[in-house]
Amino acid sequence: MYKVLALAGGVGGAKLVLGLSKILKPEELSIVVNTADDDVFHGLHVSPDVDTVMYALAGLTNETTGWGIKGDTFRTLSALKKLGDEDWFQLGDLDLATHIKRTSLLHSGKSLSQATDHLAKKLGISHRVIPMSDDPVKTKAITESEELDFQDYFVRKKCEPAITGIRFDGINNAKPSEKFIEAISEAETIIICPSNPIVSIPPILELSGITELISNFHGKTIAVSPIIGKKALKGPAGKMMMELNEDVSSLGVAKRYVGICDLFVIDNTDIKEAPDIEELGINVHITSTIMNSQKDKITLAKNLLSLISS
Amino acid sequence: MYKVLALAGGVGGAKLVLGLSKILKPEELSIVVNTADDDVFHGLHVSPDVDTVMYALAGLTNETTGWGIKGDTFRTLSALKKLGDEDWFQLGDLDLATHIKRTSLLHSGKSLSQATDHLAKKLGISHRVIPMSDDPVKTKAITESEELDFQDYFVRKKCEPAITGIRFDGINNAKPSEKFIEAISEAETIIICPSNPIVSIPPILELSGITELISNFHGKTIAVSPIIGKKALKGPAGKMMMELNEDVSSLGVAKRYVGICDLFVIDNTDIKEAPDIEELGINVHITSTIMNSQKDKITLAKNLLSLISS
Repeated sequence: MYKVLALAGGVGGAKLVLGLSKILKPEELSIVVNTADDDVFHGLHVSPDVDTVMYALAGLTNETTGWGIKGDTFRTLSALKKLGDEDWFQLGDLDLATHIKRTSLLHSGKSLSQATDHLAKKLGISHRVIPMSDDPVKTKAITESEELDFQDYFVRKKCEPAITGIRFDGINNAKPSEKFIEAISEAETIIICPSNPIVSIPPILELSGITELISNFHGKTIAVSPIIGKKALKGPAGKMMMELNEDVSSLGVAKRYVGICDLFVIDNTDIKEAPDIEELGINVHITSTIMNSQKDKITLAKNLLSLISS
Repeated sequence: MYKVLALAGGVGGAKLVLGLSKILKPEELSIVVNTADDDVFHGLHVSPDVDTVMYALAGLTNETTGWGIKGDTFRTLSALKKLGDEDWFQLGDLDLATHIKRTSLLHSGKSLSQATDHLAKKLGISHRVIPMSDDPVKTKAITESEELDFQDYFVRKKCEPAITGIRFDGINNAKPSEKFIEAISEAETIIICPSNPIVSIPPILELSGITELISNFHGKTIAVSPIIGKKALKGPAGKMMMELNEDVSSLGVAKRYVGICDLFVIDNTDIKEAPDIEELGINVHITSTIMNSQKDKITLAKNLLSLISS
């Protein structure tokens, strides 16, 4: 019997979490997901990372885009555009149902945790998907000339503006969700997924008390590097790290997790970085971390679970 | 130059209003629409009669169903059903954009009038579409055993339960919208469309001060009977009138408009009812009132306008 808590952002996190879900029973895996990039479009509450994780677990992922639901269409969005709304944040017709239902649950007084629980169950997901917080946190991408909402930076501007900083508005007043705290107290292992180390994992860690709880965690905390061969496998992590003058490397990511993780998992490609990471006081495990196929995801998940007892 | 104010419910009203819009310039026609059958589905504010009128004017009407947008699909609704919502009130993907945008505008502090104005303009409608009130009024269908929300009675239960009464909850606290009052004061003629005389027109007339304003109206008020040959052309008006022990006839409708209208327009079929209607102190005009084709709609509209100067 495992008791694993996975911390996840969007795409990279969803891949590993899917692998874990194929091995671990529902009661063995809780997934806490970043909500700092949540935003409101057309009056609807969208939780991009939660949805990416849910759709992965429900087998709905659009593998081509990495976001949204496979086979989705965009009829409502095209009609919303005619009604004067912007359509750069692409929401499909099936995907919209999630946001409509979530918004309706939130307006009826449910918390984001309760809304997520409802959605996940109805999507047939048996593992626990938990938003990091029921309070609003809003990631801002700061550039030389302006401060951008994260989705504006990430989706509309395709991460083109160089950032000088990242800020998580509201992080000081946001409490970790009750189920997050519960999941930490029950967990025997924490896995930090290969999610963006600048914008996806930090908001989770910076919630009040979380860094302390994880630093003092009685079990193993294992992080998987999202950087392979000096590049982010997916997404803007590499570009962001560079602009923030961090090493774009597994070592650079490991530096962010000093005091947080016991064991850092890097890809075979990065074997030469292992000694420098161990210098930081973090053990290193080297394996293949690329997750293209479902088999890759399950293999990496098995690999990580084998580290728990070792 | 005409100055016409049309009072309308859903399907029958939309047909005549479309005819009028093909003859009258934007500044010559205002349309005030019943909102007492508005309801919230999936957290979204739906204004069925306003939408039916807007879609007619925008050339979007689904002629087969009489509601919704032609060629619409139901992908979001099918996904909402999987998420646990009911799907008996059918909202298409294109149609949903209207409700999402309306709800978003209302939540941002706009009035229903402002939201409707925005939607109508974006749909390319140049005539004024005005909700009867910005305040909530809710039609209840009362049966021997229960009180039903109107859409529950009308759509889900297909008007099957026999009604013992109709109540417009909130009508005593609902003010006519500012633009409604403005439209009355500017109008030279009021046309009461062939809409349901039990649930569509009465809420408009019962808004505070409206019956007085129309009774004392300086111009002509012309009503068109929605009953032809003892039957409602469309919808449950006949069945409802019968259950409420009213004459299911043009005469029965005319009785409801005593003191309100100067001129009552009935179909050729009902020529024998003319003397009894005139007994009520209402002049009668007899013509063809069936509106199947667009040509029919325009012909009836022309016919009505010719009555203004006669």
